[in-house]
Amino acid sequence: MTDFKLILKENRARRGEYKTAHGTIQTPVFMNVGTQAAIKGALSAFDLKQIGCQIELSNTYHLHVRPGEKIIKELGGLHEFMKWDGPILTDSGGFQVFSLAKLRRIKEEGVEFNAHTDGHLIFMGPEESMNIQWSLGSDIVMAFDECVENPSPREYVRQSSERTARWLERCKVSLSDLLKREDTVNPGQKLWGINQGGTYKDIRIDNMKKIAELDLSGYAIGGLAVGETAEEMYEIIESVEEHMPADKPRYLMGVGTPVNILEGVARGIDFFDCVMPARNARHGHLFTWQGIININNNKFLSDAMPIDPECDCPVCRTYSRAYLRHLLKAGEMLGMRLTVMHNLYFYNKLTEKIRNALDSGTFEAFRREYSVKLGKRI
Amino acid sequence: MTDFKLILKENRARRGEYKTAHGTIQTPVFMNVGTQAAIKGALSAFDLKQIGCQIELSNTYHLHVRPGEKIIKELGGLHEFMKWDGPILTDSGGFQVFSLAKLRRIKEEGVEFNAHTDGHLIFMGPEESMNIQWSLGSDIVMAFDECVENPSPREYVRQSSERTARWLERCKVSLSDLLKREDTVNPGQKLWGINQGGTYKDIRIDNMKKIAELDLSGYAIGGLAVGETAEEMYEIIESVEEHMPADKPRYLMGVGTPVNILEGVARGIDFFDCVMPARNARHGHLFTWQGIININNNKFLSDAMPIDPECDCPVCRTYSRAYLRHLLKAGEMLGMRLTVMHNLYFYNKLTEKIRNALDSGTFEAFRREYSVKLGKRI
Repeated sequence: MTDFKLILKENRARRGEYKTAHGTIQTPVFMNVGTQAAIKGALSAFDLKQIGCQIELSNTYHLHVRPGEKIIKELGGLHEFMKWDGPILTDSGGFQVFSLAKLRRIKEEGVEFNAHTDGHLIFMGPEESMNIQWSLGSDIVMAFDECVENPSPREYVRQSSERTARWLERCKVSLSDLLKREDTVNPGQKLWGINQGGTYKDIRIDNMKKIAELDLSGYAIGGLAVGETAEEMYEIIESVEEHMPADKPRYLMGVGTPVNILEGVARGIDFFDCVMPARNARHGHLFTWQGIININNNKFLSDAMPIDPECDCPVCRTYSRAYLRHLLKAGEMLGMRLTVMHNLYFYNKLTEKIRNALDSGTFEAFRREYSVKLGKRI
Repeated sequence: MTDFKLILKENRARRGEYKTAHGTIQTPVFMNVGTQAAIKGALSAFDLKQIGCQIELSNTYHLHVRPGEKIIKELGGLHEFMKWDGPILTDSGGFQVFSLAKLRRIKEEGVEFNAHTDGHLIFMGPEESMNIQWSLGSDIVMAFDECVENPSPREYVRQSSERTARWLERCKVSLSDLLKREDTVNPGQKLWGINQGGTYKDIRIDNMKKIAELDLSGYAIGGLAVGETAEEMYEIIESVEEHMPADKPRYLMGVGTPVNILEGVARGIDFFDCVMPARNARHGHLFTWQGIININNNKFLSDAMPIDPECDCPVCRTYSRAYLRHLLKAGEMLGMRLTVMHNLYFYNKLTEKIRNALDSGTFEAFRREYSVKLGKRI
């Protein structure tokens, strides 16, 4: 049985669907980020339904630190905890351990580090990450990996990516054992591997070939969008993609702008996630089909138009730019909520439009029309 | 034509209804506070409908400072600006001028002061306040008043309350003139007077008798809940209430706890408003029909129950105490949104229950059952 069905291709771009224990996801897809079991901007699981979200993403490390996976398991798992009955992917905590935590010590067994909240000592390795994600009961479980800094010395990156590959084998054994337990929250959990290797293409390719052998349910490209140029990123995707199993979904972690997503799809990527829609909303940067606007701009002071006249999100159907601008200027939480809602809707709609374009064989035309426009500040 | 209909009384408690240009309000009623044209906790006008809000309250001073009444008028008035099509009351700004602004100079004409935002000089008197509220197009326009500190010297309070009464006459003339203009946003605007007089009963009564002669659409008791005890406040309400026109609605400004509302109704008050439901939610203080809980308490760490099993608000129908506690601890805006939503629903439900009790002649029994319980920390 295969979880992923490749429906069609246009050049390298892929239209597919992926079955999870909580429903089938149409790909390409953007995953809506709810790191701490909540979407930024006061959005609830109910709101996610309204804005076309297919799959929510939470974080192993953050939920381990607070409130702790034991509490979430006791309450029936993450779906029940946050009342989201659709698919959930949990990131492994690897990226956060290496980006947030202080005073790390990396060993073959795993990583010892201090929590970013109160500094208490935590040890996390493949088995610990699997145990937490098994307790959370997400649908897609990400492998525990080391995400190296950019730039990093070649020799370190090689050793690190080999260790990450060894960790992946331990993840596979560990999750498989856990899923045999009677008190399993979600018996349908699937493990995805993560490709690493910094900006060294040969290391990336070796790593990809090795982890492909493990025949996992899906594969991610990790450690990108950490400072390299978009061109470098696209080149790495292109080299790795050739070696990714064609019958498995591909996830480009933490990427990116609307243009990055278009370009990622064009290079064979199926899954995306990014904090950008929420983070940009906080600064008044709103995505439209004509480009990016800054709602804080004086020209919107008494503008009765919606953020984007082409958008049919709940915010654009109701509120004026003038009102949203006022809310953000006045520091009202409602401003954050409404602008995040619009930006997330935009991202979900973008991947919907990409799927429709693929279905009608017009993705390349769609990409040509939007790959410049969506990045423009207007 | 009279706007207020007194339906029945139980002792001094009154059940009535008040007609506005945007719908009829059943009283007693709690007004949901949206100072800057937005409810705290990221609640929208749509959410207000879901939680049983009958009338929204915004602030003249705050909206004058930001975004300015001209912009709101240009966009069709406050209802259109915030997309709330129910009744709106605008506070006059008097209270804020005297509580927020710095370096005030009070003259017969009005008050000169520096804005609390950027310190720019503002002059506001009865005419200015009426002009702003006329531009906003609210349904109930509050008189511009001086709210004296507590305690204040008797002689100062006497002079101030007499000046506030003179200001009221100017408000009446001014609003009446404005409403003749063709570019009037809301021709159905009604002016309410405000009783002042600090804690001096005789001054309060003199003032009430004087302003009652102006035959306004409604009357408020202002300048309470500013440091005096609840008992002092109740005594003042009792003395003033006797002199308030029986055929006009009475509004106790800025009050208060659920128990204060019960006791206010018992003393003949029809309208209430308070920031407490939102402010307390931020600190995790949640109202229930058994008393007040602090959701931050460790005992709720893995509690699968809703905030209040007796409550049928959207939050209690969906989320566990454990999830809400997690959201507040993690600093997630969603925590604020959901707890504010519950607390406001509770206040709206409280006045609904009071109305039902009055309708069935059981208000005194209701008051006995809840006047202690609702104030208890459990």
